[in-house]
Amino acid sequence: MSNIQVAYTINGTLNSKAKIILVLHALTGDQYVASENPITGRKGWWSDYVGHGMVIDTDKYCVICTNILAGCMGTTGPTTKKTLESDELWGGDFPVITIQDMIMVQREFLKNIGIDNLYAIIGGSMGGMQVLEWLRLFPDITNKFLILASSYRQSVQNIGFHEIGRKAIQLDPMWVSGQYHKNKCFPSQGLKIARMVAHMTYLSSAGLTEKFGRRLQDKNVKSYSLEEDFQLESYLNYQGNSFTERFDPCSYVYITKAVDYFDQSEKYYGDLTETYSKFGDIKSKSITLISFNSDWLYPTSEMETIRIAVAKNGGNCILTELTSPYGHDSFLIKDPNLEKTIYEFLN
Amino acid sequence: MSNIQVAYTINGTLNSKAKIILVLHALTGDQYVASENPITGRKGWWSDYVGHGMVIDTDKYCVICTNILAGCMGTTGPTTKKTLESDELWGGDFPVITIQDMIMVQREFLKNIGIDNLYAIIGGSMGGMQVLEWLRLFPDITNKFLILASSYRQSVQNIGFHEIGRKAIQLDPMWVSGQYHKNKCFPSQGLKIARMVAHMTYLSSAGLTEKFGRRLQDKNVKSYSLEEDFQLESYLNYQGNSFTERFDPCSYVYITKAVDYFDQSEKYYGDLTETYSKFGDIKSKSITLISFNSDWLYPTSEMETIRIAVAKNGGNCILTELTSPYGHDSFLIKDPNLEKTIYEFLN
Repeated sequence: MSNIQVAYTINGTLNSKAKIILVLHALTGDQYVASENPITGRKGWWSDYVGHGMVIDTDKYCVICTNILAGCMGTTGPTTKKTLESDELWGGDFPVITIQDMIMVQREFLKNIGIDNLYAIIGGSMGGMQVLEWLRLFPDITNKFLILASSYRQSVQNIGFHEIGRKAIQLDPMWVSGQYHKNKCFPSQGLKIARMVAHMTYLSSAGLTEKFGRRLQDKNVKSYSLEEDFQLESYLNYQGNSFTERFDPCSYVYITKAVDYFDQSEKYYGDLTETYSKFGDIKSKSITLISFNSDWLYPTSEMETIRIAVAKNGGNCILTELTSPYGHDSFLIKDPNLEKTIYEFLN
Repeated sequence: MSNIQVAYTINGTLNSKAKIILVLHALTGDQYVASENPITGRKGWWSDYVGHGMVIDTDKYCVICTNILAGCMGTTGPTTKKTLESDELWGGDFPVITIQDMIMVQREFLKNIGIDNLYAIIGGSMGGMQVLEWLRLFPDITNKFLILASSYRQSVQNIGFHEIGRKAIQLDPMWVSGQYHKNKCFPSQGLKIARMVAHMTYLSSAGLTEKFGRRLQDKNVKSYSLEEDFQLESYLNYQGNSFTERFDPCSYVYITKAVDYFDQSEKYYGDLTETYSKFGDIKSKSITLISFNSDWLYPTSEMETIRIAVAKNGGNCILTELTSPYGHDSFLIKDPNLEKTIYEFLN
């Protein structure tokens, strides 16, 4: 593929003295890390952490965030044109990609804007997988790596939930083998179900109980009908519907596939210590890992495997488990303890 | 509704001296607890525990199991005729029912075959909720209650996964507002997705890792296509498809709704001790609870809430947590420790 385009944001001042931080977004994130997304009107997805006066202070750091390859917010993917001359979108003809491919595109992009050195690389969830791939492929670009709520490989449980989302999309009659763009239709019902499933995995049982419990939505007694009754049901349906207005089904299928393929330890049959012994210069790196006790999607135990593998190879790696009821989503939610841990990483 | 029919099996000898055990099935179970289901050809769902020489020995006990109200294996439900004279099936016109309604039907059925006394009542998962409703509504029928992998109320997390299953079915164009029987169609794709979601909740991350890991299905290298690659993906799709051959979408929607409505503590605002203080004769009952350490759908903590509430009301209640990697499904899988615990309950 040639002529790959990259959509990005820069928050802070980019000059030769800038301390540049590359922030990598999660599955359904985008380049609008600190500023409002002009298309969706949603505030920056990490604006509680990145911006003027925030812990990743854009008066002090220059924060770059790119939409990933296969994303649907401007970077080349299923929703962009196949060639500059054509009106045809990629859709289901887009090639299957990997996390490594995302890094290759980011690397070329940075080169193109004249950057070959970063102060730090930071990412949560799938963004954390990207950080680990930067560490593997181009460790010289920085000494500081921060990984939040992520893993060195996608677990089989997570593959299962992703596969359900893909099948919900692909079984929707509007999917048309991924050719819905040219057929002027849209598998919104499948995408809605996929989002509802994913949303459940981002939350914890304790968090759900705290936020919703068994409370009813806009009623005092159960309907005894097939309608929705509980607040959580309304919330999930709302989240599912609103997702279909901002995300592309093909992008969802391609990106989940890339995440499911991710396994840094694969070449050495699951031995991450052996894997990391082949990485370039791991000894000189400062690697910080942050997990959350209620995150069952990427639990602390998987981060601990990373910490041990780095440590056994003489690297400097700190793992901090934070307490939060919000499950996997915790890394997106304002929390003084998370601010403090990020501050310590940066300074 | 009149003329309710009940499909049932009796394993063992039913006579005036029989020690009769009522076994209650789970969401997608049926009356074929110990014998092969003649329609699906599947072996009895608890044939490792019920039968000649098994821990629930049918030479010693007479085991009765009925298909629940709204089930699809012969008891009145969406797949049975509205009236004896009509050819029209209930489908989406079936009334929304509760776990209590299931018990009322079982109670009438037992009366009709001349049974007003049982040796024990046993049920797992939704079957356990039915046991608790027997304890609330008709405690005089027996002194021995065994509840496996269940809860006194459906958690909000479980409601979420059920709602996704229902929406997958109801968004399938073949659902036709539940009137697919008369429209000669079938929402198999939605039902498949619903089953895949539920299946994931029945298994544990550890169990999935042990059984499948990240192993590929019938290939040595990833396909780098949108096809399935992993063994778990094939397994989930197979399970989803085969479920559509044996279960009815309306039954699935009605029964999940009944489970979601279930909350014994509701009347007393979540106070189960207060709730159980209003139950009849809880002091004279022998209640055994069995949970499994890897069951995240109905975790031990919820069974512990039951144990404490019974104990505070002077009842005799034992909770045993068994170790198993198989998640919620553990209660269905042959395990000497489970046999031993059931044996101790019975004797």
